[in-house]
Order: sequence, then C-alpha cells, then structure tokens
Amino acid sequence: MAPPSAVEVEATSDTSAIVVPDPLTINGVPGRRAKSGRLIAGTAAPANSDMFKGHGHGHKPMAHRWDHYLSHEAASRKGNSLKGAAKYLKTPGLISLGGGLPSSEYFPFEELHIKVPSVGQFSEAETKDSGVLVSAGKYDLIEGNSIYDISVAFNYGQGTGAAQLLRWITEHTEIVHNPPYQDWFCTMTIGSTSALDMALRMFTQRGDFILSEEYTFATAVETAAPMGVRVVGVKMDEQGLLADSMDEILSTWDERARGARKPFVLYTVPTGQNPTGATQGLQRRKDIYRIAQKHDLYILEDEPYYFLQMQPYTGQNAPPVPPPTSHAAFLSALVPSLLSMDTDGRVMRMDSFSKVVSPGSRCGWITASAQVVERYMKHADVSTQGPSGMSQLILFKLLDEHWDHAGYLDWLIHIRLAYTRRRDVILAACEAHLPRDIVSWKPPMAGMFHWLRIDWRKHPLARDRTVTDLEEDIFMASIRHGALVMRGSWFYADNTVKHDTMFFRATYAAAPEDKIQEAIRRFGDAIRESFGLEQAR
Amino acid sequence: MAPPSAVEVEATSDTSAIVVPDPLTINGVPGRRAKSGRLIAGTAAPANSDMFKGHGHGHKPMAHRWDHYLSHEAASRKGNSLKGAAKYLKTPGLISLGGGLPSSEYFPFEELHIKVPSVGQFSEAETKDSGVLVSAGKYDLIEGNSIYDISVAFNYGQGTGAAQLLRWITEHTEIVHNPPYQDWFCTMTIGSTSALDMALRMFTQRGDFILSEEYTFATAVETAAPMGVRVVGVKMDEQGLLADSMDEILSTWDERARGARKPFVLYTVPTGQNPTGATQGLQRRKDIYRIAQKHDLYILEDEPYYFLQMQPYTGQNAPPVPPPTSHAAFLSALVPSLLSMDTDGRVMRMDSFSKVVSPGSRCGWITASAQVVERYMKHADVSTQGPSGMSQLILFKLLDEHWDHAGYLDWLIHIRLAYTRRRDVILAACEAHLPRDIVSWKPPMAGMFHWLRIDWRKHPLARDRTVTDLEEDIFMASIRHGALVMRGSWFYADNTVKHDTMFFRATYAAAPEDKIQEAIRRFGDAIRESFGLEQAR
Repeated sequence: MAPPSAVEVEATSDTSAIVVPDPLTINGVPGRRAKSGRLIAGTAAPANSDMFKGHGHGHKPMAHRWDHYLSHEAASRKGNSLKGAAKYLKTPGLISLGGGLPSSEYFPFEELHIKVPSVGQFSEAETKDSGVLVSAGKYDLIEGNSIYDISVAFNYGQGTGAAQLLRWITEHTEIVHNPPYQDWFCTMTIGSTSALDMALRMFTQRGDFILSEEYTFATAVETAAPMGVRVVGVKMDEQGLLADSMDEILSTWDERARGARKPFVLYTVPTGQNPTGATQGLQRRKDIYRIAQKHDLYILEDEPYYFLQMQPYTGQNAPPVPPPTSHAAFLSALVPSLLSMDTDGRVMRMDSFSKVVSPGSRCGWITASAQVVERYMKHADVSTQGPSGMSQLILFKLLDEHWDHAGYLDWLIHIRLAYTRRRDVILAACEAHLPRDIVSWKPPMAGMFHWLRIDWRKHPLARDRTVTDLEEDIFMASIRHGALVMRGSWFYADNTVKHDTMFFRATYAAAPEDKIQEAIRRFGDAIRESFGLEQAR
Repeated sequence: MAPPSAVEVEATSDTSAIVVPDPLTINGVPGRRAKSGRLIAGTAAPANSDMFKGHGHGHKPMAHRWDHYLSHEAASRKGNSLKGAAKYLKTPGLISLGGGLPSSEYFPFEELHIKVPSVGQFSEAETKDSGVLVSAGKYDLIEGNSIYDISVAFNYGQGTGAAQLLRWITEHTEIVHNPPYQDWFCTMTIGSTSALDMALRMFTQRGDFILSEEYTFATAVETAAPMGVRVVGVKMDEQGLLADSMDEILSTWDERARGARKPFVLYTVPTGQNPTGATQGLQRRKDIYRIAQKHDLYILEDEPYYFLQMQPYTGQNAPPVPPPTSHAAFLSALVPSLLSMDTDGRVMRMDSFSKVVSPGSRCGWITASAQVVERYMKHADVSTQGPSGMSQLILFKLLDEHWDHAGYLDWLIHIRLAYTRRRDVILAACEAHLPRDIVSWKPPMAGMFHWLRIDWRKHPLARDRTVTDLEEDIFMASIRHGALVMRGSWFYADNTVKHDTMFFRATYAAAPEDKIQEAIRRFGDAIRESFGLEQAR
C-alpha cells in the first residue's frame, strides 16, 4: 500500500485536530469565567474580546481582509504614540509619572445606587414594589466587593469600553450569534448612529454610493450626505431588501453613467426595518449574504430592533401564540442574524441598548473581524474615547452583576411580549378605523414601526396632483385631526428617484395604548376627509 | 447753532440706547431663573443657550461669519428631516405616533442615588462621613420633585445635551468668561477629544495645515493626521505659544513650497499646556488674539486644565500664598480666557469635566458663535447624539441641584489647592534629587505636567549620537530604575522638523505624593547613570 500523500496526511492530521465544541450557552458562562480566573482590570486597562471568547473557534475560518476597501483616513490611522509607554506599566515596582489621568481622589462621587427590577418582576409597578438597589462603591475593586467600581469607571477608559462590560457583551454575542469565523471581536460604541458615522469614514470616500433599502433610516442618509456619500435604494417587499434587485443594481452598474465606482458597502436593517417594519426571513438573509459574496460587499448590519421581534400575529379573534417557555426557545424563535452566517467576516453588526434598555446610556457595540475592530478602536481612541463610564458602570451592575445573562434574556422576553401587545393594539385599531380599500399593511413582526400603504390612485385628485402633494395633503389633514404620523417620503434612500408609492409610518412604541387607538382613529378620519369619503361613525 | 450731523445724532442715540448691565455673578443666577419661570423640558426637548443667557448682551457686536472657512462637509450638512415633524408636536391635543422613541415604561431603572461631598467638606474622608445622597426618581418631573428625571435623561436627547444641564453650563460660562460678543452659545460634547475631531472636520480639508504649539497634545496630532491635516509647530517659551513666531510663520507662508494654503486654524491649550505645562499670561493671550485677527485665524481653545491653575509657587522655604477668600477673588486669580477677549467670535472654546469632576462622564461643552454651534449640533445629531443621559443626570444632580454654582466654585478652589500641593511636592523632589546642571525647569502654574529640560550637550556621547538616541537611552535607564516619564519627542507637533532640544514630561496628577518623590529620585539616578555621573546618596 502506498503511503498517503503529504496532502492526505495533512488533511488527516487537521481533521483529527479539530475539536468542535458545543456553542456557548448561558449555562456555560460561569464555567468559562471560573476557568479564566478573577477578572482584574484597573483604570484604563486595555481589553479585547479574545480575553473572553471560548477556545472553541479554532476550527472556523479566518475573516477576509478588507484592505482594498479601507478609506485613506482609516488605512493611514496610526496608533496612539503615548500608548507605546503602556507596555512598561507592567514592569514590577515601576512608578508611573506618565499618563495624565486625574487621581480618583478628586472624583466627587463616593457611592452609586440604582433601583432596578428583580428578575421576573419587570413591570414598573413590580419594580417599585420589589425592585432591588444595586450599588457601586468608589473602591470596590481594591476592597474586593466587585470587579468594577467608581474609581475605575469614572476615570478615563479605552475606546473598546471597560473590560468588565466588554466581557458580558462578548459572551452575549457568542451566545446569541456565535459568529462562524475565528477572529471576531466586539468593541463598544457610543450608539449606532456614531458607529455608522465611523464605519462610513472607514469604508467610503467622497463620491461613493452605498446600498440600502429604498426606504431607509433618514439619519443614515443624512450622516452619509455631507461626506459626499450617496445612497442607492434597493427595492423591497414585505421581507425588506430584495437580494435580486441588489444583484441587478450591482451587475449592471455603469461607473461612467453613475459617476462613481461600483458600491461595495451595504447598509441594512434586517429586523423591524425603519421605516417599513420589514423583517428579512432566514432565506432572505441567506440570499442577501450570497449576493454580498458574489459582489464582495461589506455589510453594515444595523440591528437596534433585533430583540423587538414579536410573537406571531394571529389576528383579532384567534388565541395568541404562547410565549417562549425557555431561553433556548426564545433564542431559536429569533431570525438568525447576518453575523451568525458570516463565514467571511464581511459583516459589521451594530448592536444597541437603546431600544431594549435605555437610549440615554449612549452605549452599544459592534461585532466585526479583528482588522475592522482594530481600525474602529483606533478611531475611537482619537474621537469618542468609548462610551461614558457612568453608563458602563450602571449597565454592568444591571446586566452582569444583577441580572446576568439569564435574567437579561428574561427581560428581553418581557419586552417581546410588551411590544407584541402594543403591535396588536395598533393592528386592531387599524382594522377598526382605517378604510381598507385605501390603506393596506402587513403586520410587523419586529421593531417599532407600522408601515401603512396608501392607494393614492383612488384619490379624487390623483390625476392632477403629484404623489408628494397628496402625501402632504393627507399629512396636514392628519395634523388637523390631531394625529402625527411620519411621511414616507422623509425616508427615501435617494430622493432624486421618482417614487409612485405612498406610505405613512406610525410607531406603536411610545404612546399609551388608548392614545394609539385614538390616533389611528383620527388618521382614518383624515384619510377619509382627504379622499372625500364619508366619515366613519 | 448748526444742527448736529446725522452721524452725531446716531452716535448720541446709540449711546443712550446702550444699557450695559453688570456681568452675571453667581448671586445673579437665582433672580434670572426666577424671572424665566420654571424650566419645563421633557423627552428630547430642544434647547439652546439663548433660553438661559441674560438679556444684557445686546450692546455687544455680533460674531463674524466663518462661511469662507467651512469644509464642504460642514457647509453641506442639512438638518434632520424628521425634526421637521417636531414643530407639530406643539399642536394642542395632538397624539404623536411619529418619533421612534421607546416608552420609558421599558427602562429598567426606578431610582438613582449618588453619594457626593457636601459643600466645603470635599475630601474623600469627609465625603465618607458627611457626604449627601442625591437622588433622581423615574418620574420626578411629572411628580414635581425635580425638573429632570430618569424618564427624560435615560431616553433619547438632543445633540446639544439636555436643557436642564445646558442651563447650568451656559450660566457657568457667562459667569466665568462673559464672552464679549452677542451671539455666543454653548452646546455639549462627549469630551474635548471628540470636539476637536468634529471641529477639524468642520474647518479643514485634506492637505491643510493647522497651527499649534511646537510641542502639543499627541492625540491632537493623531486626530488630524488621518484626515490629511498636518500641524505646523509654533515656537514656545515658558508662557507657551509665541505670538511673534506665529505671525512670522503666517506672514512668510509660501503656498507653493508648503503645498498647502495658508493655515487659518490655531489649536492651542493656553493653560497648563500638555506637555509643557506652560500657561499663557494675559498679555500673551492678547498678543495671540491680535495676531489671530491680523491673519483672520479661527482659534480652537482647548482648556481642560483651566481650573487647574494653582497658587503661585513660592519655593521650599517661603510661606505659601493664602488661598482665595471669595469666589470673586478665585475667579479674578484666573488668567482670562481667549473666549473672554473674543470680540470677533473667532474662538471655539472646549471645556471639559474630565480634569475637575470625572473623565468617565464623557461630557463637556464648547462655546462658540451661533453659526459654529449650529453646525456642530447638526453634526452631533447624526454622530454622537450628545453625551450620555446617565452622565448628564448625575452631573445635573451634583452641579445644579446639590452644589449649585457657588458650591462648584468652592470645589474648584479645593482642587486648586490640591494640585498646588502636588505641584509643590514634585518641585521639592526635583530640587532634591535631580542634577541641576543637567536638568532645568520652570514651576508650572497650571495643569498636570512638569516639563523637564535636559541639557543633552553635556552627555558624554553628545557628539556621537542623536538627540533622539540619547533621549531613548535616558528613558530606558529610567524604566530600569523604576520610573516612567514621557519622552518629549512623543509630543512633537511636526516630527519632520529637526529638534535640538530634549525634554521629559512628568505628571504630578496621578501618583500618591510619596511615590512622586520616589519616582523623581529614580529619574535622577537614571540621568546620572546615563550621563556617567556619580550617583547621589
């Protein structure tokens, strides 16, 4: 028998070396933490996700490199020279007169206490009754009371955010998404608006186009425009962005006619998209990822509404679907993220606490490949400097020390059911109060927005006036009737393109439920008035 | 008698119309607030400094316009289209299904308490004993307990920051600086590092030079470099930037030789400059401002150390200067800011809580003309979104509700004396332990940094090795001896220019006092070793 070829031997030995561990679950966290030993991270201690990831990623591929897409700004950004001195700080016995950090002696804060819900008793009324005061002292770290304290959190930090919260974020990301490449990292942001601003500066230059849904988050367009970056809108259906439409745009891109190189950045909100409320199903996400591979796109996956995925809508008279009965059931009820299918490391996912904990924290995170996260951190070091340490300490106390991963998932289930209830209220109101031959909609599966399509061709003035004029007419009628809804045209990805559809966006996230009903009733009256129909009684 | 000329009449009538009120003092604040009535500002309520300024600015000139300096990015930035809908929110009875803000019902925070020092009992030990718990509830605003609460602070805000804290900041700025033009405004930042990043994007474009001290804050250079913006260093003396040197650079600027238009942005740290510790005296500031007018410069006045101005240094054996005995005496002991002499509105002053309250707040503010602040806010709306609401609430509780302006000035006097003590410790240590024929210095009047000049020409290898090599040699010797000080070359504004001076920067802000002494002793040993001198005993 001939000896196996070198290649075969190598393959064999590779295969035998591959140990594919079970993905991390919340139950696996304590064991992993115990193995790593107590986390010790003082003032402005550097940290990265590698310190907190499992060792079970070795069988995965490495992320692609994105050098060919980096802007001049991003590619030329050097390290902070003063940080070069940091490596000497480990010298035993060294006294540093180096970094210009103030002494915590002069922080006028001695203790911090926040009253937060106990796990399972999440409503405001329950929190008043049975909420718990979680506390941070100034020197808890030295005194052994906690791994994070005021003296550390309230001092300067790192662009990544503090190790203590970054650990929780990394674990959470691994539990929920388990990215299928090896060198993924998380780093904190001061919110996804800033993350998008920084990502665009990393990947685009003046004159570029990026791709997005044809109706998109207005702030994204407004963030890009002053940089000289335009947005080309991709057609959508009720599952959001159409992969085929994107393929066509890219396959037929004419650099000369467009005056711009072929786009290579996709900005997408896959879940509960703003403004359409559309959620990409699993197959749609796969299709989008496949087209992204075909055209070598880099994807900015903006997911503030990911955990606002709701229970299926069963209609007014059918019994509701029972809520998830376990953490595993909850997680598997979520549409998998683009990050979770990102074998190439071509996704920068933006996560946010804004919609599920508090927008005022100005704290979120991105997950991306080592290269992209390293560029992002370097930029953060000379701009945002990472999120507020006050916010980070409050979030750490709540999410890590008090709730832990399990309690946080319970909270997310609570939020899921709350939004389901609110969504059902607005749908019932629409069914009751809107003229169905003029207004149509799909029940949103996620997010904060209900997207109402108006059949403007039935308007008596449809032939004489533009869609925009009629949209304005209905909008003003609605204001007169006492209901504010947003005009669809405010969300055009590209307002140089002519649109022949008309939409309004209504949110069910903010107002009390009876006000939502009343506002929809008024909106119905406004439409009837504009269309010259008899008012409902 | 001939009638007075029109000009004379005008002059007379102008003079009679001018009512120059007394500048605002801390005693004037309660009256002004009472006159304006209770501040009511709910979730994401728009606010600006005009709401909080006195009416006594009408006699001042209007700021110059800076259109000719705005970058394409800044000039082309449009408003947020969705904010167009905000004007309808005032319609009585209107129900909004507009803004995608989450309901505070889903913020898992019920109460916040922070223990802070009582006025006059500022030390850590005193705070432990006699500190006060200041508290915020979730619905204090509705319940009439406070004008700011968790439901508002923890929701989305505005790029300006919240009205409640912006009022305090505007008053503080008026009390301390009383800008001598009419249309000055404050708006919050997430820290001065970010403010500089945003200012550079507002005023510069790729290929530009800005002016700065020849030794400067390394992060400033590193923020500018990836934008393609280089820094031209202006010569310094012990009072920092030399106005004449700046004049010469600008008067002899050769666009062709430099490959860049004449600089029109000056970045300067007037007080306790990093790394040199230099503080511009009053006359120096006037000279710099005059040269800025001559060449129509826009000035970025970065002042994190403004309130770290210390008592005069009297030497080891002379009695100390008695501390300020009143708020007025304290304020008049401060060198006036560039902002306070800015009749043209050509200064963007950056203030920060980092050095005097807490760096982890990631909260500061700028003061500039209406035009510049408006551009800044618009940018903040699509990037940073303003500072953390958690930070803002904590700062508001401390600075407005608890300490108020008077207590804050008392705190700043406390900090002044603490830094004086620390500065005196390092100076005594230097006098005791450094070889005076090789190392020389000026006592710093402000800030965190002591700047030590090394007479490298006395080094035995001075003829054979470069300044940089010798600097490295001393640095490594110091590390071996157990003391970290920063190399002066890390702070070059322009490292393409050859330097023939050698400096090290030592901070007295961070380490305990006995450690500062020991580190300086070790640094002295390291210098003697490098220079081949006998060690001190």
